[in-house]
Amino acid sequence: MAPDLVNLFDYEARARDLLPGPDYDFVAGGAADEISLRRARAAFDGLCLKPRVLRDVSKRTKEITVLGHALKIPVCIAPAGPYSSMRPEGDVAVARAAAAAGTLMVITSGSTLPLEQIAQSAPGPFWFQQFIYRDPMMTLAFAERARDAGCSAICITLDVKTGPGNKERDIRNAYRSPPSANYSWLNLPSAQAITTLINPAATWKDLAWLAARSPLPVVAKGIMTAGDADLCAQHGARAVIVSNHGARQLDTTLAPIEVLPEVAARVGRKLEVFVDGGIRRGTDVLKALALGAKGVFIGRPVCWGLAVNGELGVRAVLQILGEELDIAMVACGVADVSNIDRDVVAAAPQLAHTPEDTNT
Amino acid sequence: MAPDLVNLFDYEARARDLLPGPDYDFVAGGAADEISLRRARAAFDGLCLKPRVLRDVSKRTKEITVLGHALKIPVCIAPAGPYSSMRPEGDVAVARAAAAAGTLMVITSGSTLPLEQIAQSAPGPFWFQQFIYRDPMMTLAFAERARDAGCSAICITLDVKTGPGNKERDIRNAYRSPPSANYSWLNLPSAQAITTLINPAATWKDLAWLAARSPLPVVAKGIMTAGDADLCAQHGARAVIVSNHGARQLDTTLAPIEVLPEVAARVGRKLEVFVDGGIRRGTDVLKALALGAKGVFIGRPVCWGLAVNGELGVRAVLQILGEELDIAMVACGVADVSNIDRDVVAAAPQLAHTPEDTNT
Amino acid sequence: MAPDLVNLFDYEARARDLLPGPDYDFVAGGAADEISLRRARAAFDGLCLKPRVLRDVSKRTKEITVLGHALKIPVCIAPAGPYSSMRPEGDVAVARAAAAAGTLMVITSGSTLPLEQIAQSAPGPFWFQQFIYRDPMMTLAFAERARDAGCSAICITLDVKTGPGNKERDIRNAYRSPPSANYSWLNLPSAQAITTLINPAATWKDLAWLAARSPLPVVAKGIMTAGDADLCAQHGARAVIVSNHGARQLDTTLAPIEVLPEVAARVGRKLEVFVDGGIRRGTDVLKALALGAKGVFIGRPVCWGLAVNGELGVRAVLQILGEELDIAMVACGVADVSNIDRDVVAAAPQLAHTPEDTNT
Amino acid sequence: MAPDLVNLFDYEARARDLLPGPDYDFVAGGAADEISLRRARAAFDGLCLKPRVLRDVSKRTKEITVLGHALKIPVCIAPAGPYSSMRPEGDVAVARAAAAAGTLMVITSGSTLPLEQIAQSAPGPFWFQQFIYRDPMMTLAFAERARDAGCSAICITLDVKTGPGNKERDIRNAYRSPPSANYSWLNLPSAQAITTLINPAATWKDLAWLAARSPLPVVAKGIMTAGDADLCAQHGARAVIVSNHGARQLDTTLAPIEVLPEVAARVGRKLEVFVDGGIRRGTDVLKALALGAKGVFIGRPVCWGLAVNGELGVRAVLQILGEELDIAMVACGVADVSNIDRDVVAAAPQLAHTPEDTNT
Repeated sequence: MAPDLVNLFDYEARARDLLPGPDYDFVAGGAADEISLRRARAAFDGLCLKPRVLRDVSKRTKEITVLGHALKIPVCIAPAGPYSSMRPEGDVAVARAAAAAGTLMVITSGSTLPLEQIAQSAPGPFWFQQFIYRDPMMTLAFAERARDAGCSAICITLDVKTGPGNKERDIRNAYRSPPSANYSWLNLPSAQAITTLINPAATWKDLAWLAARSPLPVVAKGIMTAGDADLCAQHGARAVIVSNHGARQLDTTLAPIEVLPEVAARVGRKLEVFVDGGIRRGTDVLKALALGAKGVFIGRPVCWGLAVNGELGVRAVLQILGEELDIAMVACGVADVSNIDRDVVAAAPQLAHTPEDTNT
Repeated sequence: MAPDLVNLFDYEARARDLLPGPDYDFVAGGAADEISLRRARAAFDGLCLKPRVLRDVSKRTKEITVLGHALKIPVCIAPAGPYSSMRPEGDVAVARAAAAAGTLMVITSGSTLPLEQIAQSAPGPFWFQQFIYRDPMMTLAFAERARDAGCSAICITLDVKTGPGNKERDIRNAYRSPPSANYSWLNLPSAQAITTLINPAATWKDLAWLAARSPLPVVAKGIMTAGDADLCAQHGARAVIVSNHGARQLDTTLAPIEVLPEVAARVGRKLEVFVDGGIRRGTDVLKALALGAKGVFIGRPVCWGLAVNGELGVRAVLQILGEELDIAMVACGVADVSNIDRDVVAAAPQLAHTPEDTNT
Repeated sequence: MAPDLVNLFDYEARARDLLPGPDYDFVAGGAADEISLRRARAAFDGLCLKPRVLRDVSKRTKEITVLGHALKIPVCIAPAGPYSSMRPEGDVAVARAAAAAGTLMVITSGSTLPLEQIAQSAPGPFWFQQFIYRDPMMTLAFAERARDAGCSAICITLDVKTGPGNKERDIRNAYRSPPSANYSWLNLPSAQAITTLINPAATWKDLAWLAARSPLPVVAKGIMTAGDADLCAQHGARAVIVSNHGARQLDTTLAPIEVLPEVAARVGRKLEVFVDGGIRRGTDVLKALALGAKGVFIGRPVCWGLAVNGELGVRAVLQILGEELDIAMVACGVADVSNIDRDVVAAAPQLAHTPEDTNT
Repeated sequence: MAPDLVNLFDYEARARDLLPGPDYDFVAGGAADEISLRRARAAFDGLCLKPRVLRDVSKRTKEITVLGHALKIPVCIAPAGPYSSMRPEGDVAVARAAAAAGTLMVITSGSTLPLEQIAQSAPGPFWFQQFIYRDPMMTLAFAERARDAGCSAICITLDVKTGPGNKERDIRNAYRSPPSANYSWLNLPSAQAITTLINPAATWKDLAWLAARSPLPVVAKGIMTAGDADLCAQHGARAVIVSNHGARQLDTTLAPIEVLPEVAARVGRKLEVFVDGGIRRGTDVLKALALGAKGVFIGRPVCWGLAVNGELGVRAVLQILGEELDIAMVACGVADVSNIDRDVVAAAPQLAHTPEDTNT
């Protein structure tokens, strides 16, 4: 590791130097005043870890199993449109870096390379991200296409319905993402135009319909309440990703990590629960797992790794997170990430205010 | 929408550039240290929205009914003296913009144009803002004049009693507003002089007296406690506006949005409840409605719209708020603003502090 | 009022410009890191007032009765050494300004003018501040001297025991206050040397001994717990001043206004309770009275008034506070400061966190 | 005391000026984002002390007894590698300063001088800091060597297990500490290399094994939960130091002072409890003792004293803390540090939010 790229914040700073401003803004920005964007980070910083001593941490495992796939680290690659805007064929670089790290990549339906090309570039595992479209046959067709390409699940983004959120940086930059290769027969002018295909009238029946017919297990992405997570379980999803879409859709939501404990408590025995949003440190990963996530997803840091150093940059990002997670596991006496005591995450104790007794 | 005027803060910044400093300060400023002024915004930013998925949001309505008037958006125009200081005949521009947006304007008794001229300039609906004056006949006369001009309610400002608050920016600027056209027979030297006409000895009996005789329904503006809201209901008001007068009268009050839930819980079934103060985002509107308001009022942003672009500026301000509200409705699964679940507004969950068990 | 000296902060800023740095620092500074100093202000800013409407505020009184003296405003002059460092014969200027405003001045035993000269310069009322000295006869002698000079109570400073606190600004400035005229026979080198006369072994028995023999009622100053306030009542004090000595003795105490409610609840029916520390706004005065104080004391703002404009400056400071208090009374529907509802001070309401129900 | 070196922050600022940047960073820095580092200070600043009056504070004692040793002040010297990097033979200077102040020094196994040389340079008392090594005989041998050198306890660092934490300042500076003299036969390249000797598989059995065989009492350092403190008691430790290793191992832990009350409540009657981390003020010492610590440890301030003025600098640091503690004792009515009422530390009282009653 180069001594000037020590942590993920360093990668972001370097990427900011390297990228055209609008490209940087497209990745870095959030909706409106970006209050949720900052809250996602602040929420992690405000959670405390409890170090524990004299537990045998000589052998440690960071392996998890995600819908049947064994992963070497509990950090997966979120679906994100701009991977190939960071570097030519960036999606392929990400796929290779993910495979090298032994983790999962979710291919986005908005990728500028065809999903098949990405899925063939590395051994995977892969999921495929898509939507519930106005045309149910399109929804099903994408699931089948994903299966044919070798993906093992479809990840349904539920928190985009009628259009991109009010990401004001992009509005000011008049930013348009290049069109996706996966919708090539439609000649859409930009990635943003995909949102016109999404069914804004979709309800839980549509999820159940898809889950019953999909050739692949369904993962529901964009869940921010325990109630919706429970409905996901009732309507056939196999996993949920607690997410506010990187704070890009709606401002002033809670941070995903704040919502995670409720979701995990409600559906953790029925579904596999994941979280994304604001993860930049190995300690964040440990906190998320302690609070009920089976694994976490990262998106923006993958972009920064790509921008700085292509596939090697993404590998470095994953390696740094893994090493930081390892330090946190040692300090907290955690030998196995699949068996973390909830109690390792501490809320700050409060001194009680006790009006003193009368005399003396 | 021009890409450099994306949100209401942009309009304020532009207006600040365009306006003479004292005029800007008169609108922007608050009482004393402006703690309440900042709190009004901070309170909105601190409230969180809960996104919900898979609810049919294909057809959305932002219509509300206010004292019998159907409005197209739940954002009304607060009474404010400086509209005509921002632009010549600013009040008329506001009236036309409000009508174009399908919403209500409250004409201020401090307007530099006669209320009749304003009311005739656009189809309305209009309310008329006035006070309880030392002379009860003046109070009643204004109500009748408002009715004759076509207004459909009188909005009684209750939180001004003996004079303008200690808005120190204005004191330092030695600022004086131009006199109102509505009190022309009195030859008052400035709008501030209207406060000398107000009855500082007014009590609830005076409200009841007015409500019994007024040809128009009475709306009570400036309510900051559930107790006073209840007294409004008992003494004949038909609606209350939870408001601290834009934080211009007294510093270190609670934010109106903080008070709203108590007021709505107490009188929401007896009165129509509204709120103003600090609303700058569509998410703010959704939060206010979720917490019990039937609609919201805005004042300063109307001034900024006027200053930047006259009637078109005000229309843009209303349009931006409407579009932002729409984004928030979609994200939160709200199809109808008149039927919002209180639960869409979240308080931050707190991790419980649990001293860990003894062993292992 | 000159438009550039609008509030007490303006007076401080002007005084800072006018005074030699070490003199300014001596007045403005607090102990150690000045955390308590800032907390005293922040505590007031964090308290909220509840405006109330339609209460008759046409006739308002700010009069209070303090140990039998009727005062025109509930703001009294705290004992403070540096009055005569701000201006030659500053103590006399303060005495005259206090009398002009109809309020009480506490003459400090550290004054560079003899207490008799100060007491003769204005009609009063006056209290005299002193200590419990190592020599009980000195303690009693000062009380008798104060009575002879026309003072109506002695104010015993209990929170100075062994020396001045660690006011680091003064240490860095090597600051020494001029010696007091009241201890002239001892030839003390500085006001700070008075602390060597104080009995660090004093206990409640000493207070009781003094209270039984003093020709004047005893006021206990420097109380920061309800327990100590109760002990004051048990040992003969007639009043207590909740105070942390302007945050000059010990850092990281609570703010006096935070302690006031407990003290008032415990002893408010047995003693007259006052508070000082951080009062800069009329709203602060209203808050203190609502939370149980009969009146408040100010010290530093008196110095700033003196430094800026001598007696007239002090009068202006008192007048500003009175006018601001009046505005707050009107807004909060308070016609009489001796009859303020505790409820006018609000804590911020908290939205409860309610995990949403399962479905829909 | 020089007027420009008034408090411990002054010593740090001066040391920062004097030291090479990487040396300063090595001492001052913490793990990762240094959130825990800042939290340690902020936690002390947020605790409030309650002044008490009319308690006899004419005779005060700051003496405590630590594992049988009477110390003149409750501030002990933490084990820290860089003492001899601040000054040649810095460990000796510290030993002499500690003895002059009548307090305990913990000699670190990472010292660049042999522990015997340090222990012979001053009368002590001394403890010796070591680890549980992969080789149990090494563990025992160090304990015996410490006994032979005249140390009276061994202090086992439990919160270093597999390597130094991710102190990013050091990584960026490519910083390496000079090798320790105490492991000279191993020819380790740096102090950091000691971590390779530590047994990452150590469990409570290893502590019990050592406690049963050690010729010296065992002190467990690096405890951050009440549960681990209880396990220390069950497995033979005689004392615990609540510590997060100066926030150098894991970021986003609680502050030690936040954990102390729980630990003291759980094991305070079975073990002697100490705390380190962020102590910079005499008030911090009083707070720690009130919350259950028998004494406190300081490390970084010792380095700053050394860097500024060698042995005299360390003596000054200890003297300042003692004088500040004395001021706090006087203000809080504490005559004996071994008998402090828990209640002297206050949490901020909260105004209850009481929705006001209906009428009037």
